[in-house]
Amino acid sequence: MYTIGVDYGTESGRAVLVDTRDGREVATAVYPYPHGVIDERLVDSNQPLPPDWALQDPQDYIEVLKHTVPEVLKQSGIGPQEVVGIAIDFTACTMLPTKRDGTPLCFLPEWRSNPHAWVKLWKHHAAQPHADLINETARRMGEGWLQRYGGKISSEWFFSKTLQILQEAPDVYAASDRLIEAADWVIWQLTGVETRNACTAGYKAMVQDGKFPEQDYFAALDPRLRDVIDTRMSRQFAPLGGCAGQLTEQAAQWTGLRAGTPVAVANVDAHVSVPAVKVTEPGTMVLILGTSTCHMLLSDKLQTVEGMCGVVPDGIIPGYYGYEAGQSGVGDIFAWFVDNAVPPEYHEAAKAAGMDLHQYLESEAAKQRPGESGLIALDWWNGNRSTLVDADLTGLLIGATLATRAPEIYRALIEATAYGTRTIIEAFEDRGIPINQLVAAGGLPEKNKLLVQIYADVTGKPIVLAGSTQAPALGAAMHAAVAAGVYPTIQAAAETMGKLKSGSVTPVPENQAVYDRLYPEYKTLYDYFGRGANDVMKRLKQIKYEAREVAGA
Amino acid sequence: MYTIGVDYGTESGRAVLVDTRDGREVATAVYPYPHGVIDERLVDSNQPLPPDWALQDPQDYIEVLKHTVPEVLKQSGIGPQEVVGIAIDFTACTMLPTKRDGTPLCFLPEWRSNPHAWVKLWKHHAAQPHADLINETARRMGEGWLQRYGGKISSEWFFSKTLQILQEAPDVYAASDRLIEAADWVIWQLTGVETRNACTAGYKAMVQDGKFPEQDYFAALDPRLRDVIDTRMSRQFAPLGGCAGQLTEQAAQWTGLRAGTPVAVANVDAHVSVPAVKVTEPGTMVLILGTSTCHMLLSDKLQTVEGMCGVVPDGIIPGYYGYEAGQSGVGDIFAWFVDNAVPPEYHEAAKAAGMDLHQYLESEAAKQRPGESGLIALDWWNGNRSTLVDADLTGLLIGATLATRAPEIYRALIEATAYGTRTIIEAFEDRGIPINQLVAAGGLPEKNKLLVQIYADVTGKPIVLAGSTQAPALGAAMHAAVAAGVYPTIQAAAETMGKLKSGSVTPVPENQAVYDRLYPEYKTLYDYFGRGANDVMKRLKQIKYEAREVAGA
Repeated sequence: MYTIGVDYGTESGRAVLVDTRDGREVATAVYPYPHGVIDERLVDSNQPLPPDWALQDPQDYIEVLKHTVPEVLKQSGIGPQEVVGIAIDFTACTMLPTKRDGTPLCFLPEWRSNPHAWVKLWKHHAAQPHADLINETARRMGEGWLQRYGGKISSEWFFSKTLQILQEAPDVYAASDRLIEAADWVIWQLTGVETRNACTAGYKAMVQDGKFPEQDYFAALDPRLRDVIDTRMSRQFAPLGGCAGQLTEQAAQWTGLRAGTPVAVANVDAHVSVPAVKVTEPGTMVLILGTSTCHMLLSDKLQTVEGMCGVVPDGIIPGYYGYEAGQSGVGDIFAWFVDNAVPPEYHEAAKAAGMDLHQYLESEAAKQRPGESGLIALDWWNGNRSTLVDADLTGLLIGATLATRAPEIYRALIEATAYGTRTIIEAFEDRGIPINQLVAAGGLPEKNKLLVQIYADVTGKPIVLAGSTQAPALGAAMHAAVAAGVYPTIQAAAETMGKLKSGSVTPVPENQAVYDRLYPEYKTLYDYFGRGANDVMKRLKQIKYEAREVAGA
Repeated sequence: MYTIGVDYGTESGRAVLVDTRDGREVATAVYPYPHGVIDERLVDSNQPLPPDWALQDPQDYIEVLKHTVPEVLKQSGIGPQEVVGIAIDFTACTMLPTKRDGTPLCFLPEWRSNPHAWVKLWKHHAAQPHADLINETARRMGEGWLQRYGGKISSEWFFSKTLQILQEAPDVYAASDRLIEAADWVIWQLTGVETRNACTAGYKAMVQDGKFPEQDYFAALDPRLRDVIDTRMSRQFAPLGGCAGQLTEQAAQWTGLRAGTPVAVANVDAHVSVPAVKVTEPGTMVLILGTSTCHMLLSDKLQTVEGMCGVVPDGIIPGYYGYEAGQSGVGDIFAWFVDNAVPPEYHEAAKAAGMDLHQYLESEAAKQRPGESGLIALDWWNGNRSTLVDADLTGLLIGATLATRAPEIYRALIEATAYGTRTIIEAFEDRGIPINQLVAAGGLPEKNKLLVQIYADVTGKPIVLAGSTQAPALGAAMHAAVAAGVYPTIQAAAETMGKLKSGSVTPVPENQAVYDRLYPEYKTLYDYFGRGANDVMKRLKQIKYEAREVAGA
C-alpha cells in the first residue's frame, strides 16, 4: 500500500509516493510554480507591488497536482488502486479570499488587477502595522491567548493579513465570502469539502483550546471585523491525521488517482516534518532549515516563551504541547548573498571546480577558523520571527575591512543564523523546557555540511540529520496513511515510516570556545537593535517608504 | 619657463610638466610602482604579512623618476634647459629606516627578508597598540602638543611606526642610522642632501613650534627611544617652497634634467593641493578625495578640534594655521566594493553599456532618491582617521533586506563617506572655525558626479571643483616655481598657476531634507560604535588576530 504526500513550498510543489510499510520514497516529482513568488509586479499587469509584498497564484497549486501526481505514478509504475491516501503540507500562513464556492477572487476578472485578491504568501511582510494593532489591542484588552504566541502576533499571520485586506481594500474584503489558508483551499479543491485544519488555526489564526478570540476583540481592531469568523471562516477544526474527504471526480482527473481516495486534513510543512524525523517525544528540537527555519519542539509543559510563534495543544503530535519558533530568513539570506554580492571571480572558480556557487563558497568558508573573518552579522534580512517577532528589522553586517572577501561574509551569514537559533534555544531553556539534541531537516543541512557543524559549534548541541531530504512530503504521506487507516496514530506511522540518519554531528570544543565569545557580541547587537535602544532599522524603513512614495507620485 | 611636479601616490607616481606663466599642464606621465602596495607577501620571499600591514619598495620611487620625467620631456618637446625646477609631493606618513648614506635597509641582503626594513606606507595600520601607548603616555605626562593633534596621534604616523619597528624588530631599529619620511628620502636621492620638510615634521612627527617632544617623553615610551631624534632624525626643518638643493649628476641621468636644477623641499600631496586650487585664505575647506580623503583648512585662529589630524602654523600656506583632518577610507572602500561585492550581472551590464563598473553603478545609484535604499553604513572599512582617530574600527552596513541590490549598497557607501565629511566639518564649526564652501580635488570628484552632489546635499555646502585633475602634481610644480625663484611666494604662484572650475555644485533642498534625517542616524551609530558604548569592532579584531595566530601556529 502506498500514499502520496504533496509538499507545497515557496517556489515549487513536490509529490512523493511512499511505501507505507517502511517509508521508502518510491518516486518524486517537482513542479515549479509558473508564477513563482509574485513580489515585483502583479500578473497580467504592469502594476508594481510595494516593498515587502509577496503573493502567489492559486492556479499554480492546481498545476502542481496535475503535473506531479501523474508523474510519480508513471515513474513508479504503481497503479492508482494501490494508492490508499493522499495528503498535502503547505507553507503557512499563506491565505486567500474566495467566493462561497471556493473560487479565488483573483480568478474573477473584476478583481484580478487588485493585489489584495491574490494569495498572500507566508513571507508577505507588509502587514506589520496591522500586526502592531492586533498586538496593542490584545495587550490593552488583556487577551489571554496572546501569551500562547510569545506575546506577539506576527505580520505573517492570518489576521494581520486579513486586517490589511480589510483596511487597504475594503471592497475586496466585502466581495470575499471565505478567507482561508491556501492549504485548506487545496484540500477543498481535492474533496469538494471545505475544512479548516487545527494546526494552522492554532498556530496562525489565534485559535486556542478550540476557540477564536471573542467578537468584541475583533470589533476593537475594526468594527467591520466583528463578524469575520461567522461570515468568512469556521468554528470547526479538523484534527491532524483526520480524513478531510474523498477525491472528487475532477481531482481524480487532475491527479490520475481514483475518485474516492481518502484525502487527509491539510498540514503545515514544518509541523508535519516532526514525525517524519521520528520525533514524537519531548527533548529534541527539530530544525527545518530552508529559505526560512522552523524550530519545532514537544513538551508536556505549557509555558510562555518569549517571541515563540506559538504553542498549541496537540498542534504537532497528539498528547503534547507543540511549540513552534522560527527564523524568517535563512537559506533566503544565503541565496540573496550568492545572487547579489559575489563577484565574478568566485563564479568562475566555482565553474572551474565543477561546483555550484553555494558549494564553492562553503568549501572556501570551511577553510576559515571561527572568528577569523572579524565579521558578525544580524540575520534579519527578512525580519525577525523569534524571539523579537518584528518584520521591520533588517540585516546588519559589522567588521568589514578592505581585506574582507566574499567567503568570509558567506560564513558570517551562516554563523548569524546559527546565533539566531541559539537565541531561540535559550529562550526555551530559560523557561525550563530542556533541549538535549537537535534534528536538522530541510534542504540546507543536506547540501551544506559546514552549516551543520557551525550550528553544532554555536549551540553546543549534537545534531542528527533527517533521513529524508523530503521530510515534509514524507510527513504528509504518513498523515495520509493515518487518514486512510493504515496506522492508528501518527506515532505508530513515525515508528515505521519516519527516518533519521545514523550518527550525529557533535560540537568541536575549540570552535565552541570561540563562538562562546562571539555569541555575546551577537546578543548585544540583537538587543540593541531589536529591543528599542536604537530603532534605526525601523526609521530607515520609514524613510525608505516615504522616498518610494515620493518617487511613485 | 617650466617646472616639473612629481606626485607620489599610493599605487603609482605621476610627473607633470607645467608652464609657470599660467599653470598650463603641458605633459603628464604615470608609472605604476612595480611592487605596488605590499600587503600580502614580502617581495622575494613567501613570507606572509600580518593583517593591516602595508609596505612599499623605495626602489619603485626611483623608477618613477627614471620613467616619468624623461617621458614628459619627450612628450612636450621641451628641453632640460627650459626646466627651472622640480618638486615632489608624497603620501604621508610613509617612512623607512636607512643607513647613514641613505641606503634603505631593505636594499641590504641581511635585512631584505625583514618586513620592518621596508617602507611603511601611510596605510600601514598595524601600529595601533603603539599609537595607543603614545597617546596614553602623552596624556599621563600632560604633553601640550597632543591637543594640536586633536588629542590623538594616529597609528599611521611617524612615531607609531617607529615604535613598532623598535619593539617588534629591535635589530632593525639598531641597524638603522636614519628614520625618514619617504618624501624626504626621495629629495635626498635627487640632491645628495638630507633635508626634513617642515610639513611632515609638523603633521606626522609631532613637531610643534619648531620642537619635538622632550627626550623624557620618548624615554617614557621606551627607554631605547630616548635619543631617537638626535641619533636618527634632525632638529632642522626646511620650509615649504624652500630649495632643498640641486639635482646631482646621477639624478640628472635618471631624469634627463640638467645637473644643478633647483629641487624644492618635499611636500605632502594633500597640503600641496591647497594652493593648486587657489585656496590661500580661510573659509574654504579643500577635500582631496582619492583612496582616502584629506580635509585641508586655513584659519588665523589656533583651536583644538576633536580628532583633527593636526594644526601646524604655516603648515599649508605661510601666515595661517593649517588644519588637516581626514577619512582613512573613501575611494578604497568603493574599490573594495566594486572588486569584492558586485555580482556578474552588473559587470556584464557595464560592459554592454561601454562603461567601467564604477561608472555603471554610479549611473544606477543616481536613479535612486536619498533614503530609498533603506541602508546606512559606517565608512570605517579602513578605520577612522577623524574625528575618532582609531584604526581598529571597521565597516558596518545596516538595513539590508532580500531586495537590496548592489547599486543601493554602492550609493550607501558614498553617502557614508559624505556623512563622515559632515562630521569633520561640524567638528571645526563647533570650535568656531567657519566653513563657507568646499573645493573638491582628487581623482573621485572628476569621475563621479553623483558623489559630488551627495556631498553637497549631505553637508549643505556648495562645492567648487578643482581645475586640474592633478592638483598635487600641479601644487608641487608651483612649489618648484617658488623654490626656483619664479614667484616670491606660494600665494603669488597660486594666483597665476592655481586652477578652479567655474560654477559650483549646490545642495538640492529636497535631498538635504532627507539627509538631515539620515545623518543623525549615522551619528548615533558613529558614537555608539566609535566612542566606547559598544567596542564590538575592537573585540572582533582581537578575536580575529587570535584566530589567525592559531591558524599560523
